[in-house]
Amino acid sequence: MSVPRTSDPATLFEAARGGDRGALARLLSLVERGGPASREVAGLAFKTPGDAYSVGITGSPGAGKSTLTDRLIGLGRQQGFNGGQELAVLAVDPSSPYSGGAILGDRVRMQGHAGDDGVFIRSMATRGHLGGLSVAVPDAIRLFSAVGMPTVFVETVGVGQQEVEVAAATDTTVVVVNPGWGDAVQANKAGLLEIADLFVINKADRPGARQTRRDLEAMLDLTDLSDAGEWRPPIVDTVASTGEGVDGLWTAIGEHRDHQIRSGVLAPLRQERLRREFRQILLARMEQELDARAGADEFAAVVTAMVGGDLDPYQAVDRLLDDLIRLPRPPTADGRG
Amino acid sequence: MSVPRTSDPATLFEAARGGDRGALARLLSLVERGGPASREVAGLAFKTPGDAYSVGITGSPGAGKSTLTDRLIGLGRQQGFNGGQELAVLAVDPSSPYSGGAILGDRVRMQGHAGDDGVFIRSMATRGHLGGLSVAVPDAIRLFSAVGMPTVFVETVGVGQQEVEVAAATDTTVVVVNPGWGDAVQANKAGLLEIADLFVINKADRPGARQTRRDLEAMLDLTDLSDAGEWRPPIVDTVASTGEGVDGLWTAIGEHRDHQIRSGVLAPLRQERLRREFRQILLARMEQELDARAGADEFAAVVTAMVGGDLDPYQAVDRLLDDLIRLPRPPTADGRG
Repeated sequence: MSVPRTSDPATLFEAARGGDRGALARLLSLVERGGPASREVAGLAFKTPGDAYSVGITGSPGAGKSTLTDRLIGLGRQQGFNGGQELAVLAVDPSSPYSGGAILGDRVRMQGHAGDDGVFIRSMATRGHLGGLSVAVPDAIRLFSAVGMPTVFVETVGVGQQEVEVAAATDTTVVVVNPGWGDAVQANKAGLLEIADLFVINKADRPGARQTRRDLEAMLDLTDLSDAGEWRPPIVDTVASTGEGVDGLWTAIGEHRDHQIRSGVLAPLRQERLRREFRQILLARMEQELDARAGADEFAAVVTAMVGGDLDPYQAVDRLLDDLIRLPRPPTADGRG
Repeated sequence: MSVPRTSDPATLFEAARGGDRGALARLLSLVERGGPASREVAGLAFKTPGDAYSVGITGSPGAGKSTLTDRLIGLGRQQGFNGGQELAVLAVDPSSPYSGGAILGDRVRMQGHAGDDGVFIRSMATRGHLGGLSVAVPDAIRLFSAVGMPTVFVETVGVGQQEVEVAAATDTTVVVVNPGWGDAVQANKAGLLEIADLFVINKADRPGARQTRRDLEAMLDLTDLSDAGEWRPPIVDTVASTGEGVDGLWTAIGEHRDHQIRSGVLAPLRQERLRREFRQILLARMEQELDARAGADEFAAVVTAMVGGDLDPYQAVDRLLDDLIRLPRPPTADGRG
């Protein structure tokens, strides 16, 4: 089948649904770039919901996420979700100005699967997408789903809040730690617990693995799990470099998926993520609209007064805000607003 | 002088201006917490501009920022700016969910100056402040300035985008790197160059210091410096643990300050930062207003249509946006827009 040399989203979308990987790659480039074509792709994908199950993998640089993902690709190719054996991998580029340059090497490593037509690997950076990666990645996951991918891995490389949010925008989120990270885990338990459906202690053959497990268990003992349908994140030991324990991780991912389906939380959690995404887009668009109005007389006059010292920044914001937003507040609970 | 046991911002502010450190500490707690009292403090400080010169110090965990800050405190106490020898240190807590727990130890280390009344050390986390640290920290700097501090250090501990932004909200921003960081520097040069007024190669007695310097110089050779009034960030070698080179760093900070004053960029750059801060507050307030309206009928109907699959998220945002923002866009350049 020949790849149509077009950038028309609808044509590319039909080709990608027919199995054309070149067309899929071009659609992802459109999503990454943002703009009107990206919106059209997002709209097409949204109207064609598929059956993909998404798995996020996050953790500090050096934790072994890429090696682990590489191993999981092998298993996903044999035992993918929804009866399908193809899979897509989205590797999200770091955005933190201090994070290292590991992703290039990681990408190359995953190329062990490069000759395999059943695996589609793609890295993604922010480019110009409105709302950044936290909007672009869900768009990409829906696109993979719409073209029939049964399984999507999202690996985030980096330690920033944004990378964590991106990994959490999946059905099952795997947090990878290493032995000896007790203190770091302790310091950040709120953030970790909020996103983790599964913990992996990778490099579990190193000293300190048992203590790290005890730290995680103690943390989980204190946690209210009602939001997750009473799912208690299991802790899986792996040695990604040898493949040890990765079968168990794959099984645990499948169990989390089964749990979400059985307990009926999968659909509402996806809706909740959609609402969050909508809020992100709305805020980003409001920011755009705001900047488009920065040159308006009323706006400029307020800024001038602030720079001149007549209004503090909070007073300046108050001055503008009443004029900027007009949707009425909802009535209060007693209906007399 | 007795510390008034009040939480009234105006009373505390007068006491702090009179030299009362307990009152200053309580004002900073108000700033950190956000809310109406925080706004009042910010307003008082804004109307009482002082003369403080602020220095931001940022870099990856383990780079030696705290030891360096500790050494700089010693020099600042002898040769502070504007003829004053007192100084304030604001240590900003990490917000990244993966960053370690180093700040506690750092804080203790700086307590070498704890018995010194001329040094005011304070750590700050986000708490409930609207707009987070990127708004709270400028508020705190203005407060220090208003109560007569001639010099303010802002040390950020962490590698996230937010920490970098916070350090950049100062008059002189020092970026600390270590030998052997060539790759990391290379990978993130855009972010580093945007904020750095000075580079420090700390632990410069270790192998690789010369190569790191060459990497930084090569990066600077390719940079357009016109925004900074043609200031080329100098690169200073230090060994903070022994104090070697710290004199030279202090001198370089003073030279950057002199350059900014002489070339006339200090005032416009401060105004530019004030505009950015205003924009942050405005966006945060719009987000608040948005959430307050999320229960309104019109809003809920759009979200329901999206969750039901009738509108994609972008269409849902379009549906709401026209009703949310009412300040007209400015006319186009030819006046006929």
